[in-house]
Amino acid sequence: MALIGATAGSAALYAAMKSIRHVQPSSYKGPIKLDGDPKGAKVLILGAGLAGMVAALELRSAGYDVQVLEYREKAGGRCWSLRGGDTYTELGGATQKVTFDGDNYINPGPWRIPYDHHGVLDYCQRLGVQLEPFIQQNHNAYIHNSKAFGGKPQRFKHIATDYRGQTSELLAKAVDQNRLDDVLTSEDREALIESLRATGALDDTNSYKAGDLSSRYRGFGKPPGAGFDGAPSASDPISLSDILQSGMWGRLADADLLDHQMPMFQPVGGMDMIAQAFAREVGDLIRFNSKVVSLQQDDAGVKVAYEDTRTGDTLTAEADWCVCTVPFSILGQMDHNLSPELTAAVNNVFYRGSAKWGLEFKRRFWEQDEHIYGGISYTDLPIEMISYPSTGLFTKGPAVLLGGYTWDDAQAFEFNAMQPEDRIKWALEFGSHIHPQYLEEYKTGVSVVWHKVPWVLGCFGIWRDKETHYANAVKIDNRVVCAGEHVSYLGAWLEGAIESSLDAIGRLHDKVING
Amino acid sequence: MALIGATAGSAALYAAMKSIRHVQPSSYKGPIKLDGDPKGAKVLILGAGLAGMVAALELRSAGYDVQVLEYREKAGGRCWSLRGGDTYTELGGATQKVTFDGDNYINPGPWRIPYDHHGVLDYCQRLGVQLEPFIQQNHNAYIHNSKAFGGKPQRFKHIATDYRGQTSELLAKAVDQNRLDDVLTSEDREALIESLRATGALDDTNSYKAGDLSSRYRGFGKPPGAGFDGAPSASDPISLSDILQSGMWGRLADADLLDHQMPMFQPVGGMDMIAQAFAREVGDLIRFNSKVVSLQQDDAGVKVAYEDTRTGDTLTAEADWCVCTVPFSILGQMDHNLSPELTAAVNNVFYRGSAKWGLEFKRRFWEQDEHIYGGISYTDLPIEMISYPSTGLFTKGPAVLLGGYTWDDAQAFEFNAMQPEDRIKWALEFGSHIHPQYLEEYKTGVSVVWHKVPWVLGCFGIWRDKETHYANAVKIDNRVVCAGEHVSYLGAWLEGAIESSLDAIGRLHDKVING
Repeated sequence: MALIGATAGSAALYAAMKSIRHVQPSSYKGPIKLDGDPKGAKVLILGAGLAGMVAALELRSAGYDVQVLEYREKAGGRCWSLRGGDTYTELGGATQKVTFDGDNYINPGPWRIPYDHHGVLDYCQRLGVQLEPFIQQNHNAYIHNSKAFGGKPQRFKHIATDYRGQTSELLAKAVDQNRLDDVLTSEDREALIESLRATGALDDTNSYKAGDLSSRYRGFGKPPGAGFDGAPSASDPISLSDILQSGMWGRLADADLLDHQMPMFQPVGGMDMIAQAFAREVGDLIRFNSKVVSLQQDDAGVKVAYEDTRTGDTLTAEADWCVCTVPFSILGQMDHNLSPELTAAVNNVFYRGSAKWGLEFKRRFWEQDEHIYGGISYTDLPIEMISYPSTGLFTKGPAVLLGGYTWDDAQAFEFNAMQPEDRIKWALEFGSHIHPQYLEEYKTGVSVVWHKVPWVLGCFGIWRDKETHYANAVKIDNRVVCAGEHVSYLGAWLEGAIESSLDAIGRLHDKVING
Repeated sequence: MALIGATAGSAALYAAMKSIRHVQPSSYKGPIKLDGDPKGAKVLILGAGLAGMVAALELRSAGYDVQVLEYREKAGGRCWSLRGGDTYTELGGATQKVTFDGDNYINPGPWRIPYDHHGVLDYCQRLGVQLEPFIQQNHNAYIHNSKAFGGKPQRFKHIATDYRGQTSELLAKAVDQNRLDDVLTSEDREALIESLRATGALDDTNSYKAGDLSSRYRGFGKPPGAGFDGAPSASDPISLSDILQSGMWGRLADADLLDHQMPMFQPVGGMDMIAQAFAREVGDLIRFNSKVVSLQQDDAGVKVAYEDTRTGDTLTAEADWCVCTVPFSILGQMDHNLSPELTAAVNNVFYRGSAKWGLEFKRRFWEQDEHIYGGISYTDLPIEMISYPSTGLFTKGPAVLLGGYTWDDAQAFEFNAMQPEDRIKWALEFGSHIHPQYLEEYKTGVSVVWHKVPWVLGCFGIWRDKETHYANAVKIDNRVVCAGEHVSYLGAWLEGAIESSLDAIGRLHDKVING
């Protein structure tokens, strides 16, 4: 801690505050301005994900002659939703036909938007994408550890309240017993104890224990109601030792991360509503089903060879400049003559193989039986989490939840190696430890393992040595500039793709205009 | 703390868990069943708030002959929304004409529904009331103390992260320095330090300080972005001493209260959508503009005198039974012959005088300028809080926020004594300390001070001595049974009104059928 010193008057505090580094809310600088006439310069954009479409939109409006080549049959890249009727074929050939009910969907890629991702939020507003709250935090959802509490999931509110209460008690009592007199002023000691009582639900002996006070946070044993028997009764806290040994504290601060803080948002109807909105603007510039196989440049221009995936024909495209938003996992496999520095950067990035499941159940048993409306339950089982839909709350009929989202590499590799039917089998098996209703209520499902997604081979780029190579990935390489979440410090987020693209085209435009 | 003992295996933990009192999610028992034929017994219900309409709906469907008398010109009582075109006249005669734009509204009474208020949630589903998330917690909203930090509002995330981090540091270091060896086992000591690092964003020396780790929770000085300059830089924490002396910790646990935990809900379009939905079901039973002036009962039945507030005529109604949902603040002023016990209970309850403001601004500057989407900012100024709309996020055009919600009695009394124009003036003056845009962007407003609301004279009932009197308020008093939030342990909540009503009519029905 910097200092626990004497307090100062508000003028002094204010002076101190001003010396604290200003906190900038976002690196997004607002709508880009590309002044100056590019005189019809031709730009070829590789990839119609968000980075590619932002570039297409802004460069066309600045006067460029723009063409976009896209491997897939539609726009969006990882900004992707799967709905009933969709078919998805992964690397290796396994094909899943999605049979979700009605408008149900799952977002295999990005699925939530933080409140400070102003680039995404701004384009959503400009392009008319309707947003709704994404419920990240749910105090009534579970933390589950198969090796603690007999494998019985615990409500987040119980673990969180009891951990906070009992650690507050430990500290308040230590302060009160003069054990910390050497590091605290007497004025701060008093305020600290008072604050710990308030935030930790401690009584006036600084104890956290069963009673009305703790129950007002963790929930009552018998909740308050009406009638003769309306008075509530207290619930019993879980001991600190049990919580500590359960390891469940590992998830307590998840929703306090800047990227996960309330409020978060999602597009109404699925994340690809953003892709669709961009495609309405620039779809006419995109040539779909075009697999780029070669990217060559010289001082005169850029030449790209691509295969039409429907006909098998190889075609070529030429341009003055190229914005390459192809993931490095794919770019590294292409025939290209990029500089050694950029090539080294491309090879420095690997891609995570996260697995995600969309599981449809006959009814919202998590709402109807367990009163969990949106939010996330965490587990130590390989599925890692279950996220309940934030949309269609309280409706009847089938609904889709996120049946798992893996981060751990070892687990991801195992799921990536499985066939779709086995992945579903395991997601149901693991999930049923948290929700026994799984086996009875399951209707249909789909899973995406990102190492097998043909157009990216992973879910997002991770730098082995960012310090050495990042600037070479950013730098305009003669006539080619790279963009995408991988070329940013906002990796894995839509915001990274958008800000990277804006940064890249800003510098490209400057080079075109000013040389 | 009960015990910080040796850890046990999972079987022992499970056994321990089972001995812990079961936590019941809600006191709502599901849709009421009123079996048995009441043989056309007539019930007079006083008040068409939620308690009265629940009684009307369920008793009619059980076969009773039901009539409802309501003072107001419409149903809902405190479940009330004010919109453009509405006119509201308070006690003392001051009339406010609401001039909000379009569908904008403010809920002067209840405004949010906790996830465990299953009675409200169930009726909303049965009656087709669409719900949307109410954003209670917003890490980007402010905590404001006019006497700290030079009066500059602080972001919730800064105060919360820095408080948690530095108190975690204090405790982790105390444990690491063996200052708590007498109260912790060595196994728990290790796990406790590990947990404090994880939840407090401490480094491996157990320190909370400026750096990537703390910035990932409190926000960066320069946020991560793209381009050459994309790397983030850390922000500087506020010292624990400054936080302690600011008193801002007083609001940190607000959204951890059971009643405020995420997720919360609100009806799409205003809280009175619930009232309107009930009124669609039972509106034909309600006689509006009927001010009850006398309630008399004897062994033969109940006789009520009421005034038609439009004509001034006094009329009477008779019934076998009466469900009285009139607030005790009003009932106490009526001519009645209720038992001395019930009369004492009625007189034991007083009503809070909270003030609330709906302020409409030309644009959502809190979203556009300050990136606050829903949630609550807290202040030590008399308005106590500002709550930003959870609906219509990201839209352009005028929007209404809750410009204050007072709990403190002294402040409430002052606002209750003011005329509407002065109340608005002060809300703007106080609010502008948090949002200087107030004065520039203000469009129109309305305020409700609950001591002057003619049909209730306060916002909810508070018992002076609940232990002595509550059961007498619950008990069927010969032919009259009382219901409403005041006759519950869920005071001030819609859920209290609903559960109280269900409890009351259940017992009344039993008496009718079984004597």
